[in-house]
Amino acid sequence: MPIITLLTDFGQQDGFVGTMKGVILNICPEATLVDLSHEISPQHISEAAFVLRNAYAYFPTATIHVVVVDPGVGSNRQAILVETSHGTFIGPDNGVFSYIYNEASDVRVTSITNQAYMLADVSRTFHGRDIFSPVAAHLANGVKAEAFGTRWSDFVKGHVSVPFVRGDRIEGHVLHIDRFGNIITDIPEAMFTSITAQKAYSIRLGTCILEQVCESYADVPGGHPMAILSSAGFLEVAVNSGHAARKLGVALGDAVIVEGQGPEF
Amino acid sequence: MPIITLLTDFGQQDGFVGTMKGVILNICPEATLVDLSHEISPQHISEAAFVLRNAYAYFPTATIHVVVVDPGVGSNRQAILVETSHGTFIGPDNGVFSYIYNEASDVRVTSITNQAYMLADVSRTFHGRDIFSPVAAHLANGVKAEAFGTRWSDFVKGHVSVPFVRGDRIEGHVLHIDRFGNIITDIPEAMFTSITAQKAYSIRLGTCILEQVCESYADVPGGHPMAILSSAGFLEVAVNSGHAARKLGVALGDAVIVEGQGPEF
Amino acid sequence: MPIITLLTDFGQQDGFVGTMKGVILNICPEATLVDLSHEISPQHISEAAFVLRNAYAYFPTATIHVVVVDPGVGSNRQAILVETSHGTFIGPDNGVFSYIYNEASDVRVTSITNQAYMLADVSRTFHGRDIFSPVAAHLANGVKAEAFGTRWSDFVKGHVSVPFVRGDRIEGHVLHIDRFGNIITDIPEAMFTSITAQKAYSIRLGTCILEQVCESYADVPGGHPMAILSSAGFLEVAVNSGHAARKLGVALGDAVIVEGQGPEF
Repeated sequence: MPIITLLTDFGQQDGFVGTMKGVILNICPEATLVDLSHEISPQHISEAAFVLRNAYAYFPTATIHVVVVDPGVGSNRQAILVETSHGTFIGPDNGVFSYIYNEASDVRVTSITNQAYMLADVSRTFHGRDIFSPVAAHLANGVKAEAFGTRWSDFVKGHVSVPFVRGDRIEGHVLHIDRFGNIITDIPEAMFTSITAQKAYSIRLGTCILEQVCESYADVPGGHPMAILSSAGFLEVAVNSGHAARKLGVALGDAVIVEGQGPEF
Repeated sequence: MPIITLLTDFGQQDGFVGTMKGVILNICPEATLVDLSHEISPQHISEAAFVLRNAYAYFPTATIHVVVVDPGVGSNRQAILVETSHGTFIGPDNGVFSYIYNEASDVRVTSITNQAYMLADVSRTFHGRDIFSPVAAHLANGVKAEAFGTRWSDFVKGHVSVPFVRGDRIEGHVLHIDRFGNIITDIPEAMFTSITAQKAYSIRLGTCILEQVCESYADVPGGHPMAILSSAGFLEVAVNSGHAARKLGVALGDAVIVEGQGPEF
Repeated sequence: MPIITLLTDFGQQDGFVGTMKGVILNICPEATLVDLSHEISPQHISEAAFVLRNAYAYFPTATIHVVVVDPGVGSNRQAILVETSHGTFIGPDNGVFSYIYNEASDVRVTSITNQAYMLADVSRTFHGRDIFSPVAAHLANGVKAEAFGTRWSDFVKGHVSVPFVRGDRIEGHVLHIDRFGNIITDIPEAMFTSITAQKAYSIRLGTCILEQVCESYADVPGGHPMAILSSAGFLEVAVNSGHAARKLGVALGDAVIVEGQGPEF
């Protein structure tokens, strides 16, 4: 039973996602379909890239991940199929696979051009239905990647946010704000602990200064801010039982500074 | 593996949809369940009808589609089962299947009355759980339509929006506004091109006047309005990287005028 | 095909639920996954408890229900597995299973401690992914409850709202407000009819006084309030084609008084 995941900015109201599932099940009835998210902010490619990065590694390596956050639909942007040792990815060539390219060492990209694996009528505005879904279903049925088109090396690498490090100082940024208002930074756990394991430190985000990392949200009283290592492997700033981003007035892209202070332990 | 789709205005918060799935899996464990949408505006029958119309044809013909947008639940409105050559539809007889009746030539409607295929206790307010789900599951198990009740010819045809055409002028209306704010009109692609293929034309919607149809959203600069042929087969007005309905101040039902101008090409 | 349901406050945007499904399918590929709700208000344990109560009995008795509404994640709260004759429940020990304890006579609770059935790296903030999902999947694969940890009798019973009855007067409270704005009280149908079957009565909720129970929403004109027996088995106050909670200015916890008046019939 092949697994196909779907990640889009389609929302739930219009039936777009259900229609994609109909197309897939028509071609590959035994597919197991899993929704990653359909509430990506409209046309927000980097948000989709981050959600995909946090999820894909928890799926079996044979999983096919379809991503449709596609502001350039109908233009001359390519449709691509990305094979890696941990999953195959199908979607527009707009940088939404930036983390995949960054983390995998064995990426092989195919430009999807073979109309035999698309729906007969390809619309100008809904390639999720007309191209990406049927390609995923045929792939699940055993069609080889090379049948869908030709090798494509000029793919859009996209942008992976990386903090700036100088000595004991890390300058990172807010990468994601989740449903609870938790603030996920781009500072990886290993980078953070390489400095903070050795000396006192401060974490600064707007007017908020924190000087330790907690083990659980409940380590501080309700309504208080705290730092914690997020489940995605990055430094996170949260508010116990509260919405940190609103409480601290923080937005995507804001600077987060970690600075070691004083002598080593 | 029979496919059963679900289309409701139940939202995601209360567990109504999950409960329906429990009822179905209890009766037909091997059913493949697909959500079309559960974010139909509460009790908005025509919105559900349009979403269903855009999705059902992409599913296998043996699919069972359950629709529960049902302001008259518990009243004397009928529960019906609609057989067609492209899917079977189950829901309240309130016009939600208007497009199905309009598009299919082989419609056979059964009034659902046999309590043997309903839950033992039928509530006054949740026939999605107590009637429509168990009926769908028994149908998926192979029970014949005639076992659920008797032939019903007095069903509610409902309303399918059709533009008014006079000479080179089409007067249509806004049929749907999707998650992205794209404005879907009731002007079919074929009706539109029958006029616009032959002469210059204008498309008017509120204060917005457009004089061509684009091939992709990206054909105009960000924030600019444009016309395009939608994936649902109708004329659509959109704003590249923006929310057209908000930007243009457009609401459901607003008039859209297409008018041919000058001599034929 | 084991059924695993998921009930969380994770929302749809971040991919948390999809990630849990990846973990489950990695361990138990043939699981049938069903979403109960992921739109529980953030960290609102009693709302999740009520949604679970209304849904679980409609699933096969072998179903595994995973609930992750978990403000104490990473603290010393227990992770538990609750076996009953109508389903097995997995989640944090914070009272979210209060209705299950109340309704089932054969509850057996196990504290989940065996790391062999958790992911290798257990984060501080996402036990839904790292503990609850893999435990559910291993249970679905046939691992026995006692393998996950030890019997636990000191579990959090939680709170089940029960009306106060004195003579012909019931003092209940607003338990839930659903997607449509319908107001679900904690007054069970049987308690209600034990008084109202015998004499005239009034139902008071804020400034609204009702003196009968309707058979369907359509029994009153659009916009009018009415009482009805909800599909969950409680007294409900609704507004035909309207949002009762907003229209009547009612919030969770508000008092609802049912009072018998005059002689018995």
